[in-house]
Amino acid sequence: MSMHAIIMAGGSGTRFWPASRRERPKQLLPLARGKSLLEATIARVAPLVGAERTWVVTNAAQAERAVGHLAGLPPQQILVEPEPRDTAPCVALATACIEARDPGATTAFMPADHLIEPAAELGRLLSRASGIAADGATLVTFGVTPTRPATGYGYIERGQPLDDLAPRAYAAVRFREKPDPATAAELVRSGRFLWNSGIFVWQTSALLSAMDAGSPALAACTREMAAAARRGDRAALEDAFRRAPKQSIDFAVMERAPRVAVVEAQLRWNDLGSFLSLGAVAPPDGRGNVRVLHHGARAMALDAANCVVYAEGPRAVALFGVADLVVVAVEDAVLVCPRDRADELKELVGQLAANGLADLQ
Amino acid sequence: MSMHAIIMAGGSGTRFWPASRRERPKQLLPLARGKSLLEATIARVAPLVGAERTWVVTNAAQAERAVGHLAGLPPQQILVEPEPRDTAPCVALATACIEARDPGATTAFMPADHLIEPAAELGRLLSRASGIAADGATLVTFGVTPTRPATGYGYIERGQPLDDLAPRAYAAVRFREKPDPATAAELVRSGRFLWNSGIFVWQTSALLSAMDAGSPALAACTREMAAAARRGDRAALEDAFRRAPKQSIDFAVMERAPRVAVVEAQLRWNDLGSFLSLGAVAPPDGRGNVRVLHHGARAMALDAANCVVYAEGPRAVALFGVADLVVVAVEDAVLVCPRDRADELKELVGQLAANGLADLQ
Repeated sequence: MSMHAIIMAGGSGTRFWPASRRERPKQLLPLARGKSLLEATIARVAPLVGAERTWVVTNAAQAERAVGHLAGLPPQQILVEPEPRDTAPCVALATACIEARDPGATTAFMPADHLIEPAAELGRLLSRASGIAADGATLVTFGVTPTRPATGYGYIERGQPLDDLAPRAYAAVRFREKPDPATAAELVRSGRFLWNSGIFVWQTSALLSAMDAGSPALAACTREMAAAARRGDRAALEDAFRRAPKQSIDFAVMERAPRVAVVEAQLRWNDLGSFLSLGAVAPPDGRGNVRVLHHGARAMALDAANCVVYAEGPRAVALFGVADLVVVAVEDAVLVCPRDRADELKELVGQLAANGLADLQ
Repeated sequence: MSMHAIIMAGGSGTRFWPASRRERPKQLLPLARGKSLLEATIARVAPLVGAERTWVVTNAAQAERAVGHLAGLPPQQILVEPEPRDTAPCVALATACIEARDPGATTAFMPADHLIEPAAELGRLLSRASGIAADGATLVTFGVTPTRPATGYGYIERGQPLDDLAPRAYAAVRFREKPDPATAAELVRSGRFLWNSGIFVWQTSALLSAMDAGSPALAACTREMAAAARRGDRAALEDAFRRAPKQSIDFAVMERAPRVAVVEAQLRWNDLGSFLSLGAVAPPDGRGNVRVLHHGARAMALDAANCVVYAEGPRAVALFGVADLVVVAVEDAVLVCPRDRADELKELVGQLAANGLADLQ
């Protein structure tokens, strides 16, 4: 497959606090059978497109820690965002650097911090998307077949099938933000909505056209970055990056592009949006307790039910007579919160500094 | 005051698990304004009776760790129980060793792990008790004036006053086990019941007479130990100790003795029976959260109420949206349990081995 894969690894680290931090985001946690999510993502995709076409975009705060998770990738394919500016500038930066090396390439962008299995199916989907993107005009996204009325994911409405080939691909009609429970149930029942996987495939020319239409400022910055990358002018590249609009790629491009296709992906896929997702990493015991234990951590649950324990060793977590809690224990911090607040950790992280815990952000 | 003070420091370490362990019981935790309870007990009593008459009884499992908490006491006054056998053999061992050195002494026995303030009042009470015990026949105990209908303490019913002196002393009518809440309320309302402080004062001759009446086997072992101590025969001393009945001093002696007096003690006193007692160590914040933090530990509570946090640094504990929990975080272990199970930690500790955590007992 002649395609570049770009792994977007600049996450903020609040959802799995205190295991994750600004400098040690979720994708660096060992949530993929003992490997980090970033390592697992590289291991999944590099064999499909070749290590010489696999790129990682990280950010300045995380680059140092990320290095240990990049085994096998050429250093020039590790791109460092000068500052976090959401996903559109990230896509622009990688596009510019790839365009400088391989003009007119097909690129596949994907998050570093999702669980995706099996890798072979991902390969099939990328091939299919590459074929669709070959028209030089269509932006392709993957929509995961929903298995439950999830409220934590965005949805994509599919329209007419593009053709009779497999995996099935459709015109994308519209993108929907995370729904409330009633809407989620309705979307899934309709059979026309797929989970937005955050994986995108396109030719650079198609992306630039879509940027021209959806976010001309972003398009201009991207072309500036590409010119700087061709000249090897790092300062100009970073300068243009800093001026790029702080937008998500969904908002800046996908939701406004005239030709978007969605390939239906029948994958075991989980974006690990919060500690509650850890059931996808370790199956619950008979009382619904999920334990994700690293580096020799141990856990014991006595009269405890429906709890999530994430611990890094050497330490033990003992739950006694509690229910519906998330308990996280790492070297320098412990978190206890109810399951139904696990999605709101950003609020807690936002209060750390005011509570004298700025060093733990 | 010519009296020997014996600090009984052989507690089992389950009530404050995982901060306390078999080898690091409650009395070694820094719960007394940064000092351990044992250190604080020595510091309280040694100035009253003299360091040369202050004794500590510890046990084999804890002796090594206890050494760091005994500053200033002569090594020959540190007695080590060969095995834990409840309080009656502990009293017998100390009595034997003191009798060998100072026949016919007055002795004051007290637990190592209680909060008692102020020390000056304790001195007044010990003097008073010493005067009562001077008849060579009366066993004296301290009964703390109750300030609430506590269910976690035993009670002593007081009878007629002995005399008009202060602090007030009474004939002790009977001992009551820990009551249920309704009974506790009734006992306190009656005005005739005092909390059993576990502090006892007597002359050795009075103790031996009471043992003869209440537990002849214990009396025989005590005399054997005293003879062995006089000969300096450590093996015989330990042998007799191991044959002493495994009983509490309350059961073996106090509840059966014909002449027991109770001195009413108006002390700030707390036996720190569980993590719920930590409000006596650190006052709760405006939402009822108690934080006891050592060695640089930090804690943050966001939308949290009525929780108890005990942590040893360097680590931070963050509570988010929880209520009525006990959260303990030490180097190698974390405990989360509801307040209303905090008294049942013994059950959890009993299950550690079966859960692969025998090393944390």
